[in-house]
Amino acid sequence: MNLSDIQTPALILDLEKFEKNCKDMKDRLGSRNVKIRPHLKTGKCLEFAKRQMTSLADPATVSTLLEAEYFFNRGINDILYAVSITPSKFERTANLIRQGCSLKVILDNETTAKALSAFCKEENILIPVLIEIDCDGHRSGIAPTSDRLLSVAECLTNGAKLVGVLTHAGDSYKCYGEKACLKAQENERDSLVLAANRLRELGYNLSIISAGSTPTARFGQNWDGVTEVRCGVYCTYDLVMAGLGVCSVDEIALSVLVEVIGYQSEKGWIITDGGWMAMSRDRGTAQQPNDRGYGLVCDLSGKPIGDLIVASANQEHGIICSPSGQNLQEKDFPIGTRLRILPNHACPTAAQHPQYFVTKDEKIVDIWKRFYGWQ
Amino acid sequence: MNLSDIQTPALILDLEKFEKNCKDMKDRLGSRNVKIRPHLKTGKCLEFAKRQMTSLADPATVSTLLEAEYFFNRGINDILYAVSITPSKFERTANLIRQGCSLKVILDNETTAKALSAFCKEENILIPVLIEIDCDGHRSGIAPTSDRLLSVAECLTNGAKLVGVLTHAGDSYKCYGEKACLKAQENERDSLVLAANRLRELGYNLSIISAGSTPTARFGQNWDGVTEVRCGVYCTYDLVMAGLGVCSVDEIALSVLVEVIGYQSEKGWIITDGGWMAMSRDRGTAQQPNDRGYGLVCDLSGKPIGDLIVASANQEHGIICSPSGQNLQEKDFPIGTRLRILPNHACPTAAQHPQYFVTKDEKIVDIWKRFYGWQ
Repeated sequence: MNLSDIQTPALILDLEKFEKNCKDMKDRLGSRNVKIRPHLKTGKCLEFAKRQMTSLADPATVSTLLEAEYFFNRGINDILYAVSITPSKFERTANLIRQGCSLKVILDNETTAKALSAFCKEENILIPVLIEIDCDGHRSGIAPTSDRLLSVAECLTNGAKLVGVLTHAGDSYKCYGEKACLKAQENERDSLVLAANRLRELGYNLSIISAGSTPTARFGQNWDGVTEVRCGVYCTYDLVMAGLGVCSVDEIALSVLVEVIGYQSEKGWIITDGGWMAMSRDRGTAQQPNDRGYGLVCDLSGKPIGDLIVASANQEHGIICSPSGQNLQEKDFPIGTRLRILPNHACPTAAQHPQYFVTKDEKIVDIWKRFYGWQ
Repeated sequence: MNLSDIQTPALILDLEKFEKNCKDMKDRLGSRNVKIRPHLKTGKCLEFAKRQMTSLADPATVSTLLEAEYFFNRGINDILYAVSITPSKFERTANLIRQGCSLKVILDNETTAKALSAFCKEENILIPVLIEIDCDGHRSGIAPTSDRLLSVAECLTNGAKLVGVLTHAGDSYKCYGEKACLKAQENERDSLVLAANRLRELGYNLSIISAGSTPTARFGQNWDGVTEVRCGVYCTYDLVMAGLGVCSVDEIALSVLVEVIGYQSEKGWIITDGGWMAMSRDRGTAQQPNDRGYGLVCDLSGKPIGDLIVASANQEHGIICSPSGQNLQEKDFPIGTRLRILPNHACPTAAQHPQYFVTKDEKIVDIWKRFYGWQ
């Protein structure tokens, strides 16, 4: 089976690029003496996760408890749930731990820390906890210099055991080029080390110092004091990462196969069956100097065709235009022509599809199922 | 079971509002002597579709062949596939027709018309075809005044039988208020009637004159010459429709249940577990005067809380802010507080979830499964 034989739109994973991206990041972090704890939220698929890891015994990161359950039930054990836990999720967490999962949770406030401590006492269970550190003000966490770091740690008692600190350099998604990413990584590392040292001075024994984001993972040189790096989108990359200079367009392993279904010759538009349902509504490159619309248009080999982008999209329609004004006509892209669209952001695009069509040299060599939802 | 008993994030369908929206549109179009051919792409769910229709024998619209197959296998027969067909989808179309499905396809170009005619001859099958008309320049279709309308019709031979014309007033999604929507509807109707008359003058017998969009369906008064109206999002509505004045915020039947997981007291932010994976990446209100971010924040009864919106989102994090500068603190929204977020655009938000939690008076009365994908 090849790319002409399947119905469009379809999610395509270039196996060689994907495996190379996975290996490169393992090698890169290995050479810098820090463990990788890959984020499995991008793939939401066991076969995908296996390539991110070296063995199922390796550390992994998830963003939902359904992901934790899914991967634990398939043999992955060392799992960090990297979104702040709340009381309504304690029971589901405890169920995994009782079944033998080495699940770790995170939190960043006294209320949750106290509630978890009370839960652990009542249930007579040990739940390992990392405190989330805010290294760049983009989302959750406690500033590494804040008094609240110590007060949250003090609220962890009984089986709610403080084992580490964690941060996510979310602002690195706005860092253009190696130098800016490196600066974000140094800040990420320094924030974590500062927070860890403050807690250690009080006698806490921390074994996990967890940093993570693809831009900082790609360019970070010195991870002293950090034990592991979480990253996710590095395994496929996408146009947002290429726009930052974190990868080249050629390294992007994920694309959506679409088909030309019509044209508007007076406007120079080509119309495809790849709308936002297939690409997702993500417009991440809209904030970058080089706006790629809903995606960059490539031929079947994955090579970009001029500057063509999916300039606009409806649910099941994509409109392909040339930003430089090339007038696209039916003769250039006859009805039925198949194209591959590189996505702005791999995570939401993949989430629109129930499976990956895994390709090698334009042949489909496997189909990997994804899962979705929360319950 | 009520809204406190399920894991978050979760997709909530308010049954009473949903059923009222469905009934109102049926009554409205009925009183205007035009049939409704509801679009089933918003719901992607049989129980949902049943409320849009009066009986499974009613006409329906789909946006993918998987939708056609899914609904045909569950008893819906009169199906219009409202995205231009291409040769790679002929066989799948023919399979449905051979099984007894009254499936109709659309196209807007000579190449596809000729290919379909050849296919019908070879397979000895009748496939009913509508020509897509471009009434407002927003996407696909042939201008009603174009010579190409006649040349495409001439290319339909053998079993590829021309039975009608279809248009979608996509530009009505930029029409603010009743007057502007009404103007879009008159243009939609007039374009269709003009195209139909031109074809009838050549002797074509057209039985389906199909218009459709929620704004034009809501405000259209005179549908003379149109046989049916396709509309989809009217059954749940959303913030984009409310922003146009097509519905009130109170009529929106779809929301995402989220939980407060943290806060940033210095910034006045509340953080929830409803990120873009739960809301979708749709930012439809960003183009409107009243930008609602990733959604409007409501209490459990569905009532908006001040001007609070989900101002930004990561995959599994939503950041709630007050655009007017209200400083949100933990005491106002304690950890674990549950909120309902109204979405920008019902179709992509619903697509992020495997099921609807159907509620009545804040009690969960049913769970309806959705499907997704294309293959």
